[in-house]
Amino acid sequence: MLLNLDGDGELYLQLSRALKAAVLEGRLVAGSRLPATRVLAQDLGLSRNTVVAAYELLCAEHLAVARVGSGTFVGGDTSPRRSGRVRQERVDAQSTYAARLRSLPPLPLPMRRAGTAINPQYGEPVTHAGLFTAWGRALASAAARADPGYPSAQGAPELRAQIAAYLGRRRGVVCAADDIVVVNGTQQALALLARVLLDEGDRVALEEPGYALAKHCFVAHGARLVPVPMGSDGFDVAGLPDPPIKLIVVTPSHQFPLGVAMSLPLRRALLAHAARTGAWIAEDDYDGEFGFEGRVLPALRSLDEADRVIYIGTFSKTMLPSMRLAYIVCPRALRHDIVLARRVMDLASPGIEQQALARFMASGAFDRHLRRSAVELRRRRHALIEGLDRHAAGRITVQDSGTGMHLIAWLPGFDGAAVQGLIDTAAERGLGLHSLAPHYETPPPVQALLLGFAAASVAQIHQATRLLGECLDAVERSQSVKPHRRRVGG
Amino acid sequence: MLLNLDGDGELYLQLSRALKAAVLEGRLVAGSRLPATRVLAQDLGLSRNTVVAAYELLCAEHLAVARVGSGTFVGGDTSPRRSGRVRQERVDAQSTYAARLRSLPPLPLPMRRAGTAINPQYGEPVTHAGLFTAWGRALASAAARADPGYPSAQGAPELRAQIAAYLGRRRGVVCAADDIVVVNGTQQALALLARVLLDEGDRVALEEPGYALAKHCFVAHGARLVPVPMGSDGFDVAGLPDPPIKLIVVTPSHQFPLGVAMSLPLRRALLAHAARTGAWIAEDDYDGEFGFEGRVLPALRSLDEADRVIYIGTFSKTMLPSMRLAYIVCPRALRHDIVLARRVMDLASPGIEQQALARFMASGAFDRHLRRSAVELRRRRHALIEGLDRHAAGRITVQDSGTGMHLIAWLPGFDGAAVQGLIDTAAERGLGLHSLAPHYETPPPVQALLLGFAAASVAQIHQATRLLGECLDAVERSQSVKPHRRRVGG
Repeated sequence: MLLNLDGDGELYLQLSRALKAAVLEGRLVAGSRLPATRVLAQDLGLSRNTVVAAYELLCAEHLAVARVGSGTFVGGDTSPRRSGRVRQERVDAQSTYAARLRSLPPLPLPMRRAGTAINPQYGEPVTHAGLFTAWGRALASAAARADPGYPSAQGAPELRAQIAAYLGRRRGVVCAADDIVVVNGTQQALALLARVLLDEGDRVALEEPGYALAKHCFVAHGARLVPVPMGSDGFDVAGLPDPPIKLIVVTPSHQFPLGVAMSLPLRRALLAHAARTGAWIAEDDYDGEFGFEGRVLPALRSLDEADRVIYIGTFSKTMLPSMRLAYIVCPRALRHDIVLARRVMDLASPGIEQQALARFMASGAFDRHLRRSAVELRRRRHALIEGLDRHAAGRITVQDSGTGMHLIAWLPGFDGAAVQGLIDTAAERGLGLHSLAPHYETPPPVQALLLGFAAASVAQIHQATRLLGECLDAVERSQSVKPHRRRVGG
Repeated sequence: MLLNLDGDGELYLQLSRALKAAVLEGRLVAGSRLPATRVLAQDLGLSRNTVVAAYELLCAEHLAVARVGSGTFVGGDTSPRRSGRVRQERVDAQSTYAARLRSLPPLPLPMRRAGTAINPQYGEPVTHAGLFTAWGRALASAAARADPGYPSAQGAPELRAQIAAYLGRRRGVVCAADDIVVVNGTQQALALLARVLLDEGDRVALEEPGYALAKHCFVAHGARLVPVPMGSDGFDVAGLPDPPIKLIVVTPSHQFPLGVAMSLPLRRALLAHAARTGAWIAEDDYDGEFGFEGRVLPALRSLDEADRVIYIGTFSKTMLPSMRLAYIVCPRALRHDIVLARRVMDLASPGIEQQALARFMASGAFDRHLRRSAVELRRRRHALIEGLDRHAAGRITVQDSGTGMHLIAWLPGFDGAAVQGLIDTAAERGLGLHSLAPHYETPPPVQALLLGFAAASVAQIHQATRLLGECLDAVERSQSVKPHRRRVGG
């Protein structure tokens, strides 16, 4: 405890004054426990009686309360904190970066809608109590073996070796542990690429519609965005303008948010374009692990013979988003710069978590969890598609490529206001829905909902589709009398 | 497992060809275990007999080995991987940021010197088996209660509340949980400040000598560095040039690396300067928690009435550097920008670790660990000072402000080559030493060693000082005949 005795008079009075000042200035928070008298006496080199006397004085002044058997607590009715600080609530943006940050629209984050019990949201993976227990055990075991020092900026070699083996086995990506850089989530991978690849004004091509946090990252960085409209079979380089693009960010396995898988001809065209123009391709393979009917597509990186694809994989969808662990498979020529940038950005990823994950993967527990997740996802996806067919057929059109963890329910005939009406109606009935529109730069030609099937049980999905059907009924009834619907109709 | 059957002929032959391709292309790594036949059959929707037959064929071709009771493994003598990829080893820096990164000198990182048994190094905290066990338990318990979703960009409210209470109690800093942003280590705090406060060409004042990773962060960002020479009682704003500085980075509690504590008059002058010129002050309080003889100094932030001090605290020295958890106490006017920048940089800090730390602090375990660490640090510091006095008196001069976890041993009469000779001699005898020189921008006027006393036991410190004495003897003997010493002497 930080206390300054003023040297004036008896020690217990000095200590009492110092404690009183700490309470009145708000340094000791109301309700918090004061140290045991023995402990404080030892810390300050005073006799225990001195501390006891000072505490008694504090209690007499109602600045503290002694509770028998549990100690002395800072009084709850002390005057409000006074820090004497003049707090300026707002200043002009202090850098162009901050100014650009302030200009960004709100993020469509995959959050559960407050007050809704049923959330067919996207973005959260399949979890179950067994996963949390197993992961907790892995963490505790790694903590017991932890190296107390600073972790490697590139990532723990044991984890990188496991990731390399996993990528070969399940994503068709052949790489060595040395090609991999462990990062804190896909977002850090994107932020590193902005730093290492892009000067202000450089052009970066992004899918439209696309992942809003990627847009935000590159806009804040000062890059010029080139949105490329998504076709029915993926991102088409034919849509790129003539002058060369420095970086092209794609989600070829399962486009976010549309769910389209990029066709092989478009993949080859994209790789040829990169090889020819010297563009870099960032492949964000956020949920490519999961495929259902038919085969899973190998990653774009597996076809990349010119070493232009920067592959980004994440454990947010295969384990837990709260882990904040992802990785980059770096083209050889960029690896050193990415590691240097990572060190300057935040030194390294947490050591214990990396060791825990390496062992979790080496033990086979990760593969078992993936298989279990795939089985569960198949059941949930089936329940969603079947429920939509039963309760919403003819009013929505499902678009689904048979991979990933969410699908799109198109709402032909809806405008933005009608979608908002549907979302509001659903929220009143305890159902959380998310519109596709915020993922577009400009208002979308057709409205839709993003429906995730990973984070809700089959029973919840049954209930969700039933509720959605009811909400569609309700919105249709109310809309038939609303002016904007009449205008659309007329 | 990612396998594409070619549809040609019998299924077991198709599967065997697909597996063979995966092995030969390096997607299946030599020595790794193939999935159990039951599991692969289920994954691919084939009969188990088909998989068994394919595995047998693979074994017959020596591409796999069946081990009774443990499964089938990819053969260890497969041909080298062929990815067909043309790997360019190096390209020109792709951004000015990358170019600046490449131009930076090597970092003086606090690493154990390879092959040395005794390491009085700086940078690592006091640890003991009990801490790892307790932390592992806290992690496992937090994992069991984990929220599967994305954590808050500002940091877990529970953890921020604990940090606010801790700062009031032990660092004299009055703040609310809402003023705090949790980050991945001090380095991320610095990287965020660069983004939010500095445009390219803006001036940032740094202590000289100072923390190399801070320099690297700001140089890479494109800021102009203004080094301010350290006086005997700290950073003196009188040393700043006239044109205003945007950001001033200081370590007032225990200057890194010199160990000086900034005097009260200099603190007041610095705060007045900031209030007058509108400069921001980043207070890096990396080990201010630990003080020995006399009282611990409250943080500079506790005196800051104009809300210009951005306080940075870390758990790297009070818990473990591998945790990568630190925090910023933000001036009100900057908080929103810092949270936005953090979200774009890497979204959030890991959720389970934040919850574990919040409970570790709330339970009193953190305060107990701090007290135990302080007792141990006091013993180790005493052993170091006493050992230096016994074995190196007259040849080194100890500088120590009575706080922190390292001290400076000045080596009057040594030049850079002589210090390197001393370090090499020590390494031969199993003693790891670190020079002060790499922490200077230009060669220092007097050479010195940085000696940490946190990460070595009292017995190791006894041995380290004895060895250091022997090395000083050896270097003096050899130097008396070396030309550069004669030149210096003559």
